[in-house]
Amino acid sequence: MIKIVILGAGNVASHLIQKFHKIAEVQIIQLYNRTIEKLEEFNHVAPITNNSEEILDADVYIISVSDDFIEEVAQNLISKKGIVVHTSGSASIKRLLPNENIGVFYPLQTFSKNKEIDFSRIPFCLEAKETSSYQVLEKLANYITDSVYPIDSEQRKILHVAAVFVNNFTNYIYQMGSEICETYDIPFEILIPLIQETSNKIESLHPKEAQTGPAKRNDKTTIANHLKLLNEKQQHIYSLLTKAIQESHGEKL
Amino acid sequence: MIKIVILGAGNVASHLIQKFHKIAEVQIIQLYNRTIEKLEEFNHVAPITNNSEEILDADVYIISVSDDFIEEVAQNLISKKGIVVHTSGSASIKRLLPNENIGVFYPLQTFSKNKEIDFSRIPFCLEAKETSSYQVLEKLANYITDSVYPIDSEQRKILHVAAVFVNNFTNYIYQMGSEICETYDIPFEILIPLIQETSNKIESLHPKEAQTGPAKRNDKTTIANHLKLLNEKQQHIYSLLTKAIQESHGEKL
Repeated sequence: MIKIVILGAGNVASHLIQKFHKIAEVQIIQLYNRTIEKLEEFNHVAPITNNSEEILDADVYIISVSDDFIEEVAQNLISKKGIVVHTSGSASIKRLLPNENIGVFYPLQTFSKNKEIDFSRIPFCLEAKETSSYQVLEKLANYITDSVYPIDSEQRKILHVAAVFVNNFTNYIYQMGSEICETYDIPFEILIPLIQETSNKIESLHPKEAQTGPAKRNDKTTIANHLKLLNEKQQHIYSLLTKAIQESHGEKL
Repeated sequence: MIKIVILGAGNVASHLIQKFHKIAEVQIIQLYNRTIEKLEEFNHVAPITNNSEEILDADVYIISVSDDFIEEVAQNLISKKGIVVHTSGSASIKRLLPNENIGVFYPLQTFSKNKEIDFSRIPFCLEAKETSSYQVLEKLANYITDSVYPIDSEQRKILHVAAVFVNNFTNYIYQMGSEICETYDIPFEILIPLIQETSNKIESLHPKEAQTGPAKRNDKTTIANHLKLLNEKQQHIYSLLTKAIQESHGEKL
């Protein structure tokens, strides 16, 4: 049985609370958050507190708060013997110092408040200062996912930038698509199967091999016609990405 | 029974041939392509030809060739009575003139040569000069998909630009993510569940509502740290998309 305390009440914390609550081999012995109201929906899971002096002794403390508050929350755990980890993609493990037994427990996924998620497919990126602590984190992760990677703080920073591209920027590109449709009263839902096929394709095909379209074909007529339909901001992004695709596929010519 | 001739042997043509071959209510009576070798894999489906003088009488002629060749292929059908359609997202219906009974049969999806696809979810965008012809096209589409939209040539042009964003540009963003990972020897596969969740999210959430990340939070420290990890080309695209997201979410402030 691994005893854990989860500190935080945001999207990641909430999903972890709900998931670990269902795992027989893991006991959530306490939930902490500075604003206790946000934990009230979980008071059937474990005792809740907003008093940092009352934190109980556990095997693992999972700090799942905004990056800016990691250090502050970690300060409350200095007298504890358990492993202190955070769940951030971009914060270094060093933010947890001067705690000694420290680590990272980073689920590489986007969480929405009211959308259930299949944990078994979420890659967990783990790091720990002590080998024995890594093994505990690995055991903990294996209860909820099939996908665990040892990733140090440097690699995690890289992954986080790459994640900003494939998640935040991709999502903004979807938004641009929806705005183009809305300008002309066309339902955006027509594009959803295309969006999903585009993301499914890369399971079997490297994105560079999967590329199609007027930029790759260097189809100047279509590109010129498209630009006429766009506003200035859309034109700017269309031109930049078209040029980038052309350069990428021209490298081999 | 609807009798059809399919003209072309590219990705879209190949998928349509294979799909309609399985539909009892549709009979492919002939396949035409200028280069006959490309049709040989389908000679169990219907008689194949590369002789435009030999084209048989059908209810619908589906021209599924590169945009630049639509007019040339359409010229061969002027003596025919059937409905002449193309499958292009960007070509106007007028490319089929001087044929009189013309239309468009555009599946809004990305097709790969060796990847099977679930037709039932593909939106078919239909257009026809004659109402009775529209009804035939609608019937034909309904045999293979649950999703049919009447879309005229102007709307189709808009949809095609929006599709370039959500498909070609998104795919290029995936490529950038993979290149960032490869530079630092991190397996790109770690990002695939995130990519798929990002695309699944928009079924239940408008992309503007689904936006997360340092750009939206205006997290200047993380943005500055990310830029340090990128090469010049990546920095340029990162900065432009970050600014665009900030502007989009600042509008309401």
